[in-house]
Amino acid sequence: MQLYGIGKQSIRFLSDKASRFVPKGGVYPKGFEVGGIHCGVKKDGKSLDLAILNNTHGKSAVASAVFTTNKFKAAPVQVSSKIVKEKKGEEINSLVINSGNANAVTGSQGMKDAQDMITVTDAALGNPTNSTLVMSTGVIGNNLPISKILSGIPQLAGENLGSTHEHWLKCAQAICTTDTFPKLVSKLFELNGHTYTLAGLAKGAGMICPNMATLLGFFVTDAPVTASALDQILKFATDRSFNSISVDGDMSTNDTIVAIANGAAGGEPIDNSSSSAESFGILQREITGFAQQLAQLVVRDGEGATKFITISVKDALSYGDAKIIASSIANSSLFKTAMYGNDANWGRILCAIGYSQVSSGDSINPAKTNVSFIPSDGSQKLKLLVNGEPEVVDEERASEILSVEDIEVEIDLGTGGGQECKFWTCDLTHEYIAINGDYRS
Amino acid sequence: MQLYGIGKQSIRFLSDKASRFVPKGGVYPKGFEVGGIHCGVKKDGKSLDLAILNNTHGKSAVASAVFTTNKFKAAPVQVSSKIVKEKKGEEINSLVINSGNANAVTGSQGMKDAQDMITVTDAALGNPTNSTLVMSTGVIGNNLPISKILSGIPQLAGENLGSTHEHWLKCAQAICTTDTFPKLVSKLFELNGHTYTLAGLAKGAGMICPNMATLLGFFVTDAPVTASALDQILKFATDRSFNSISVDGDMSTNDTIVAIANGAAGGEPIDNSSSSAESFGILQREITGFAQQLAQLVVRDGEGATKFITISVKDALSYGDAKIIASSIANSSLFKTAMYGNDANWGRILCAIGYSQVSSGDSINPAKTNVSFIPSDGSQKLKLLVNGEPEVVDEERASEILSVEDIEVEIDLGTGGGQECKFWTCDLTHEYIAINGDYRS
Repeated sequence: MQLYGIGKQSIRFLSDKASRFVPKGGVYPKGFEVGGIHCGVKKDGKSLDLAILNNTHGKSAVASAVFTTNKFKAAPVQVSSKIVKEKKGEEINSLVINSGNANAVTGSQGMKDAQDMITVTDAALGNPTNSTLVMSTGVIGNNLPISKILSGIPQLAGENLGSTHEHWLKCAQAICTTDTFPKLVSKLFELNGHTYTLAGLAKGAGMICPNMATLLGFFVTDAPVTASALDQILKFATDRSFNSISVDGDMSTNDTIVAIANGAAGGEPIDNSSSSAESFGILQREITGFAQQLAQLVVRDGEGATKFITISVKDALSYGDAKIIASSIANSSLFKTAMYGNDANWGRILCAIGYSQVSSGDSINPAKTNVSFIPSDGSQKLKLLVNGEPEVVDEERASEILSVEDIEVEIDLGTGGGQECKFWTCDLTHEYIAINGDYRS
Repeated sequence: MQLYGIGKQSIRFLSDKASRFVPKGGVYPKGFEVGGIHCGVKKDGKSLDLAILNNTHGKSAVASAVFTTNKFKAAPVQVSSKIVKEKKGEEINSLVINSGNANAVTGSQGMKDAQDMITVTDAALGNPTNSTLVMSTGVIGNNLPISKILSGIPQLAGENLGSTHEHWLKCAQAICTTDTFPKLVSKLFELNGHTYTLAGLAKGAGMICPNMATLLGFFVTDAPVTASALDQILKFATDRSFNSISVDGDMSTNDTIVAIANGAAGGEPIDNSSSSAESFGILQREITGFAQQLAQLVVRDGEGATKFITISVKDALSYGDAKIIASSIANSSLFKTAMYGNDANWGRILCAIGYSQVSSGDSINPAKTNVSFIPSDGSQKLKLLVNGEPEVVDEERASEILSVEDIEVEIDLGTGGGQECKFWTCDLTHEYIAINGDYRS
């Protein structure tokens, strides 16, 4: 792998991303404490590998979670999903997360370890039983170094939790694996005369694909919302954010997205009844936009990625069709390598549209299909295909558009259905191969 | 791309493949003439880019064809499939194929060009109208340099067709694009006391995935068979060969597999009635094995491939399930890069099994799933996962098994269903990125 190793230039490039995408400060929701430490899972003896988030505003936060659909569900996924289901999202106050080992395919010992992480965290934080959800990310098939984790938890829960920007950043760092920068976003929003805050963290990098992947993410807010309303909002938001991104088309055994709301900023609880419809709509829009922002950071940090690509499918018969087509393009290795090479090879885009598994015969009509590049500087779009006929493309202009980091491809299907979808992906590069060709050693 | 260009070592490796996989001689079916010339589609002014195959045994050969299911079907696919359908596979005597330009997404001019290639070929060979099928492969979206092709056809059909090994090799070379070696196989087989011959050619390299890809292939035989029986055999054989391979998961607009039989070696015609059952079975087995041999060559020459990987799924509930699971592994970028890196990361195999889209809930039971590596030297298999529990793996032995070119991964699903499937793929490498990141320039 020597020849292709990540050279000095790439390292400069990656740290450049960190300086652009890691915030220098933030606004964080009331009533939460977070932190991260090194407890000994990661072998370098220093990288943060254990994170906790805790609700300090009473012990009655509500939570919703979305889990991987992979049939080999890791132990923490099995244990956490059981708790969310049994408690119907009520009284879930804390998260405990380790990185460096996924606790996946680890048999009955793995299940015990996941439950022990919850039990020890609840004890350390003074929570009622099973108030904590657990997540793990890293290599599959090895048992956790559980004693290190279980002794790390009280150490972290003791003096190492807090609510400053540094605490949030450490929490975000502690959930990373091959990520080149921690993913942390926060924002304020207004609702019913109150100011609420949202904070979000994610871990991504590889194995990212539709319907989630080795993706851990959580949002917390101090807005008041019922468990049932939060559940509905999280599913809507995840569908349009974490389930609309792809790095390499692989979906992991550990994917988990959690939302927690503690109501610490006051106001009437928002539910999903008709009387709350306006507030519900605002909260859903805020959380969806926020989830997209976080999901996009995962794509920007896709393993080896040098480009951030938006696939915009318009005028589809249905949202489902639009998403299938966008996903097909986003997962095409040939398309992704062409983007890496600044090559306006739109034939590969068309090809991926053509083999996408849309259900209806009317979903795609070659003679009505349009493909364009949308320049990131707001200048006029470059048409590549108009109603199924290739344009004479100014290759120099095309290369110019493709040479920047942010690329948008627009597909107008011309069906008259008017439905659309946005999907985000990155390019497929030499660094991806270098990172994944020798990940474990 | 300089840094990652295909270095001297890789070029040695590729030419080594050519010396191992291109035959020095062959046995060819009676009554066929073939050839290839440079007519001017490829820009280097010398590479062969036009091929013809012609039945000289009367004008009554039968043919069957399988085409891409991509919704953007290239002009030659549309024109050829119409002819096969209209003629019900009867009286198809010739093939004309150009490489360097796919004649795909080329509007009405493209349709006219494809038909003109047929008309001019039929005229040059003295065929009845529409006795020829046309194929094209190469870049999408540019019109063919049709006058060069149409003047090349009579030149090729005149003195450049023949039946020697060199003629067959030139024909195989003339259909290549990014292939590093021409794919040509031939064999004799016995049936009802007659000796028959099969010859096959294919073009592959990139865009190879289940349900075909930029894949052109054809078999010809001098055995006597009805059009309807040949059709049934070709579908069976293609499903288990060209539709059971994957290079990069992309399926092209041009895929075509054609079988032609002229009966020149004599004997009673084989049909698909019950009275012919035994002969039909033998012919189907011969053609299927032969198609697998040819399809495997396409994988061996997968763009940038350094490994030839057999995925063997056993004890599935159905053949369909086994194939979906095998295909899911074969298309996982993470699995393919791990194989490139000689990394026994079986977690990625399990992960791809887990997200495969099998239909039934009983198709995969994590607690009954087994994964092993089968060494290519016939030594004992290395168990990685037994009934869902990870083995303590001898990493040195695993690296040893993975360090050779031919790798077999065995998945035993333990369902009791007993169905199985073999699938072939290659690794995902730096060379793949280098080839596809700058294909057009």
